[in-house]
Amino acid sequence: MKSYLEMSREELTAERQALEAEFAEIKTFSPDLNLTRGKPSPKQLDLSMDMYDMISSKSILRTQAGTDCRNYGSLDGIDEAKRLMAGFMDCDEDQVIVHGNASLSIMYDTIARAMLHGVLGSVPWCRLDKVKFLCPVPGYDRHFAITQYFGIEMVNIPMTKTGPDMDLVEQLVSQDASVKGIWCVPKYSNPQGITYSDETVRRFAALKPAAEDFRIYWDNAYAVHDLYEDDRDELLSIMKECEKAGSQDMVYEFCSTSKVTFSGAGISAMGMSKKNRDDMLKQMSVQTIGHDKIKQWTHTRYLKDMDGVRAHMAKHAAIIRPKFEVVDRIFSEEIAPRGIGTWIRPKGGYFICFEAMEGCAKAIVAKAKEAGVELTAAGAPFPYRIDPKDATIRIAPTFPDTEEMEQAAKVFACCVRLVSVEKLLMKTL
Amino acid sequence: MKSYLEMSREELTAERQALEAEFAEIKTFSPDLNLTRGKPSPKQLDLSMDMYDMISSKSILRTQAGTDCRNYGSLDGIDEAKRLMAGFMDCDEDQVIVHGNASLSIMYDTIARAMLHGVLGSVPWCRLDKVKFLCPVPGYDRHFAITQYFGIEMVNIPMTKTGPDMDLVEQLVSQDASVKGIWCVPKYSNPQGITYSDETVRRFAALKPAAEDFRIYWDNAYAVHDLYEDDRDELLSIMKECEKAGSQDMVYEFCSTSKVTFSGAGISAMGMSKKNRDDMLKQMSVQTIGHDKIKQWTHTRYLKDMDGVRAHMAKHAAIIRPKFEVVDRIFSEEIAPRGIGTWIRPKGGYFICFEAMEGCAKAIVAKAKEAGVELTAAGAPFPYRIDPKDATIRIAPTFPDTEEMEQAAKVFACCVRLVSVEKLLMKTL
Repeated sequence: MKSYLEMSREELTAERQALEAEFAEIKTFSPDLNLTRGKPSPKQLDLSMDMYDMISSKSILRTQAGTDCRNYGSLDGIDEAKRLMAGFMDCDEDQVIVHGNASLSIMYDTIARAMLHGVLGSVPWCRLDKVKFLCPVPGYDRHFAITQYFGIEMVNIPMTKTGPDMDLVEQLVSQDASVKGIWCVPKYSNPQGITYSDETVRRFAALKPAAEDFRIYWDNAYAVHDLYEDDRDELLSIMKECEKAGSQDMVYEFCSTSKVTFSGAGISAMGMSKKNRDDMLKQMSVQTIGHDKIKQWTHTRYLKDMDGVRAHMAKHAAIIRPKFEVVDRIFSEEIAPRGIGTWIRPKGGYFICFEAMEGCAKAIVAKAKEAGVELTAAGAPFPYRIDPKDATIRIAPTFPDTEEMEQAAKVFACCVRLVSVEKLLMKTL
Repeated sequence: MKSYLEMSREELTAERQALEAEFAEIKTFSPDLNLTRGKPSPKQLDLSMDMYDMISSKSILRTQAGTDCRNYGSLDGIDEAKRLMAGFMDCDEDQVIVHGNASLSIMYDTIARAMLHGVLGSVPWCRLDKVKFLCPVPGYDRHFAITQYFGIEMVNIPMTKTGPDMDLVEQLVSQDASVKGIWCVPKYSNPQGITYSDETVRRFAALKPAAEDFRIYWDNAYAVHDLYEDDRDELLSIMKECEKAGSQDMVYEFCSTSKVTFSGAGISAMGMSKKNRDDMLKQMSVQTIGHDKIKQWTHTRYLKDMDGVRAHMAKHAAIIRPKFEVVDRIFSEEIAPRGIGTWIRPKGGYFICFEAMEGCAKAIVAKAKEAGVELTAAGAPFPYRIDPKDATIRIAPTFPDTEEMEQAAKVFACCVRLVSVEKLLMKTL
């Protein structure tokens, strides 16, 4: 198969003609598939339904320590849940606060608190002229939406295969006191599926920030979301590395069971040093009487411990692995040999990140929509929704079934080819 | 029985001696009762346990409209839950946003949003020199903790038997543009158990605030918490009155099922005009992907509609009514004839509010603690925890069983008598 980059104008023109015919045919059976968000499929959600057989009117909803989970109290969560979530975050259970159904809300709230009350007594950010966050790109659109909402200036940091460009991170963090945070999805990053290397984690722990209130926002959303049991990425514990470096106050860890049990009906948690935790509890005592302990009870009964979690996640992997593999196969067959796009084959997480030729992403997404396949908007994985190269497209393979995903991948490949040919023809004008 | 106010110095001295002996005896069987918070008793929590028989691995967790409650989405809640919560708030279901487990968190968040982003485009409060809230007193300590946390100046508004002193409210709201809100618990108010009269509600709806971003924070926490089915207070719908007056943007309604099903594991909601609702949803879209829809599903299946809620609340009333009545009886026997305190006999809610002689509240609470009965701190129902008269004590009768409550009320009465005698003796010096 010939790379498009080596084709002559005549060859490209012929290819375009063939692709236009193919695209016209695809449009006739417009599949109406939505790949915009990283949502679990109904079959994945079915996996956890037996959690509800563990609770009935006969249940004694008490913790081991005797707390009645049905009543008010336990601001930081029940001990059993703290223990479980510590496993997700690779930290001590006494560093954990268990929250409600969404880690996103905790992140939002953590930043809202810093805006109005500062961090461990620092000047509230709303009183500063400028607050900046470093944003490894491509990244998670909802992280960037939070910082944008609060008027925080976002600075793009390129991702490498081992994590964010740490030279740049070190330089900015140590020299600019207006840099107050960095967003990280350290394992199976959203959207590229990259796991930070040991060296990257250690360099994070060794950061010497100019701002005392600089924090690493370590969103370990895919901590246990491996696709292959025998070939999974291992992430160093940021908390332990920070403790070794004496920088344990510099990191906030986040996690949830949203993609373990139920999306929007799971539990979430934060891991922090004692100082940070005490600071947060002070605020939380004003904000709430406590989070849902019955859900904490059912979740800890159901998942038990990290072995239980791993076993449960293996069932998820069995469902979603074929979807990732079919995308990889079709891209390998249809796109790679033609030299018109690259991607990292992820070993976990929820996304495949496609890098098209520069200037093609928006056109590909529009084309796919025309053919009934809705993708995350081009630009979404970047601050302010601006992809400087217009090249990155996030693909979320988990929700459709494998056959649908195969069909969508084929439509996508056709769109990539068509848009790329058109781009190349414009260049050769 | 002779009023202490009519006793001579000799009589008072004799009374003190007798009471000191009585108190010494009470201390020997120190009951260790905690009446600090308005918590449902285990028996009340038992009432809702059969909710968990309505959900199992076989349940189809879909809404009538077909939404999968197990997955992400539905930022404003499922339709069934909106309908249910509209009944609590006496507003239209399309005015409702269903939230997580705690209405307190929504209030916190509503104020945090106003601080950083203003209200419908107004200047964010954090940029203003002064922001004030009106606080009917005595009131709910957690309301005051929120406004204090955000540095909002609190202004005491005396409560009358028909609600807050509306002359004062009207004057301050219409003349002072720094007054941005008022905290209200309009039915069975915390702690006095007062329900706002129709006239009070109408005067609220007719307010002409100097500040465009003034809002009434209408926390209808005890909307359905009647003690007597055939003698319950009726509260006018603030939303409907505001709509009639054209002031529908001026009110935020809050409610929850915390004291209907499970404290901390129920659902909460807010009722608002379309403008306010759109404004809030804009923020919420940054903050979360949605609240727990499975819990919304189980709650709406379980409670069904307002008839279902009323029937369920009658069971609560049957459990807690005797506790309220025993307090009323002992106070009527031991305290009222002696002229040393007053209270309103509430027809619902969670508290009895005792008004001691001026300067006695702290001493009574301390004395009760000495005898093993822990009460809400004196001062707590006031902004900054300062009761100008040191007279108000909130009693929370729901958690202990009736026998314990009787015992606690007796201890309390003894403490009131002892402290009052001492006070009177000091005065006659």
